[in-house]
Amino acid sequence: MSAISYELLHKCKQTGARRGVIHTPHGDIQTPTFMPVGTQATVKSMSQDELKDMLDAKIILGNTYHLYLRPGHKLIQKAGGLHKFMNWDRAILTDSGGFQVFSLGDLRNITEEGVEFKSHLDGSRHFLSPELSMEIQNCLGSDIMMVFDECVEYGANYEYNKKSMEMTTRWAKRCKEYHKNIEKQALFGIVQGGMFKDLREQSAKDLIDLDFPGYAIGGLSIGESPEEMYDILDFTAPLLPENKPRYLMGVGTPDYLIESAIRGIDMCDCVIQTRIARNGTALTSLGKVTVRNASYAEDFTTLDPNCDCYTCKNYTKAYIRHLIKCNEILGARLLTIHNLKFTMNLMENVRKAIEQDRLLDFRNEFYKNYGYDK
Amino acid sequence: MSAISYELLHKCKQTGARRGVIHTPHGDIQTPTFMPVGTQATVKSMSQDELKDMLDAKIILGNTYHLYLRPGHKLIQKAGGLHKFMNWDRAILTDSGGFQVFSLGDLRNITEEGVEFKSHLDGSRHFLSPELSMEIQNCLGSDIMMVFDECVEYGANYEYNKKSMEMTTRWAKRCKEYHKNIEKQALFGIVQGGMFKDLREQSAKDLIDLDFPGYAIGGLSIGESPEEMYDILDFTAPLLPENKPRYLMGVGTPDYLIESAIRGIDMCDCVIQTRIARNGTALTSLGKVTVRNASYAEDFTTLDPNCDCYTCKNYTKAYIRHLIKCNEILGARLLTIHNLKFTMNLMENVRKAIEQDRLLDFRNEFYKNYGYDK
Repeated sequence: MSAISYELLHKCKQTGARRGVIHTPHGDIQTPTFMPVGTQATVKSMSQDELKDMLDAKIILGNTYHLYLRPGHKLIQKAGGLHKFMNWDRAILTDSGGFQVFSLGDLRNITEEGVEFKSHLDGSRHFLSPELSMEIQNCLGSDIMMVFDECVEYGANYEYNKKSMEMTTRWAKRCKEYHKNIEKQALFGIVQGGMFKDLREQSAKDLIDLDFPGYAIGGLSIGESPEEMYDILDFTAPLLPENKPRYLMGVGTPDYLIESAIRGIDMCDCVIQTRIARNGTALTSLGKVTVRNASYAEDFTTLDPNCDCYTCKNYTKAYIRHLIKCNEILGARLLTIHNLKFTMNLMENVRKAIEQDRLLDFRNEFYKNYGYDK
Repeated sequence: MSAISYELLHKCKQTGARRGVIHTPHGDIQTPTFMPVGTQATVKSMSQDELKDMLDAKIILGNTYHLYLRPGHKLIQKAGGLHKFMNWDRAILTDSGGFQVFSLGDLRNITEEGVEFKSHLDGSRHFLSPELSMEIQNCLGSDIMMVFDECVEYGANYEYNKKSMEMTTRWAKRCKEYHKNIEKQALFGIVQGGMFKDLREQSAKDLIDLDFPGYAIGGLSIGESPEEMYDILDFTAPLLPENKPRYLMGVGTPDYLIESAIRGIDMCDCVIQTRIARNGTALTSLGKVTVRNASYAEDFTTLDPNCDCYTCKNYTKAYIRHLIKCNEILGARLLTIHNLKFTMNLMENVRKAIEQDRLLDFRNEFYKNYGYDK
């Protein structure tokens, strides 16, 4: 029996949005959901208690590539797995390492067997294969594992995308064969195929034949226009089984989160919330606020008048700007808390709107306040 | 009437240690106390709620030099003062800016009128005088202000120390004359005189004549041996009024904190706890633990078996080491929390030992566990 299961609670009558629950060995996840990214066994600047108490995060991500290099999956296994190592008793999803390895550009070489690459830390040589990715993720003990896939860069031609997609399917099969811990860790397949619908269809079909407990859509939000992304999403999401969770990888700006939910996506993740926080930018109900700017130096109001997060309850733009200008850790912390809570609140509102069959209305209201044109 | 008052509760029968309370406009401070340093309106990496909930800090420091340069005292005044600006409703002590300005070395020039200096941030020219230091500290609205003094470098000769000490006394007088907000902000004098006892005696006498509500001892822990420091402290502390608080500036390693309490000091501050935290070192009951070291890579125990801090309740050395090696903010946070809580606990134990007339016994037990020779 699979480690996780998906329960569909309601479908929005205005859209294809799904209101559901994913049951995992480390608790239930209300969907659609946003998953904060904890690349190196920490969601940057946050403590695990803050993830619970301030955000009520039910699931976070860990990155296989980073944890393999540092501190090493064997060390984490000795610690009792990633949950114990980082003292997090809720759900964890780990990626396969594929995306990071392919992002290394000239530092990697892809063959049917796997990917040879040089560490971004010290230039040391490594070889990552579907089997090793599974072994690493088994050592980490995540609730949801991802198959080792190739994420093709935007603009690659049909031939390259076809060959790569077919290899990704063969790799998915090798992952499934290697992964034995299926009652505690669910392995998701990843649909690839670039911007080509027939390849997306083939990929989805072949992966569904392999019968994974969940499916991701990979290779989006990598440089294409929003319209192109939505087009592929409109086409691909309905190909996936109704009774399994659907994860759109690496997507998480407010508009993408809403548009993905509308198209039947259950899970998203993104580093943008935490990354722009450290650079001094807040996501708010009235649009982006670059609090680092001089115009906020004497602004003694909070980041977002409609936010109930810890930061907005306690601190002003002027103070946060001062901290960011001084490179003070608390500045990064306060903006990270806000950006993640803003996003968690957004998903909460998306879930409510689905229950009330008014997700399109919600989207339009949100865009109007946020300052989107559409 | 002075903004603050000192109440002596008990004197240790084994030592000269004083158990007391300082009453301030923002709450009572049990003494001897350690004051965490919040240089730029933040105790590095900590939130104000954590200072309260995790450490129960009753007073923190702010640095006049840094806040004058960034964000500027006028901006903080507009925010309603430093308490409001940083959302801290307990006591604040601000230094005078003197120490930081003198630390600039070649970038400053001292005259009777004050000190001309170049900003360490952008090289811009500034002039800090006793009067401007008072004006800045008045804008900040700290509960305890410090007079503008010269901290002479270790090794300077008798003549230089004598002239400097006499100027510091004249500056103290100018500070007292400028500072009008005495019912809300208490101004402390600073005894100087280097390693020369007759100069220390003269300084203390002249400052006591000026009748400040509290006295600091400056110019120690600047390069002299512990024995030399204790010798000056043994001589100087008894010169100060019994009914007013005594603050030893910039001192805060565990041994110095205990030895200072033994010699009748009520208040100390130091950046070492937070600074070594960010470098990966913990202060523990069993001595320093440089958790960054490879020997802790697979150490799944906590930093200190005798510590009840948030970090020791939740995280292992192996995890903290991983975070520090990866430059993750949470690593600096966890070690800062631990080092400050360790120090607050130490002071709590010092206060108890004074009440029980056994501070010498406590010191000896502490040193034995900590690994000191003496």
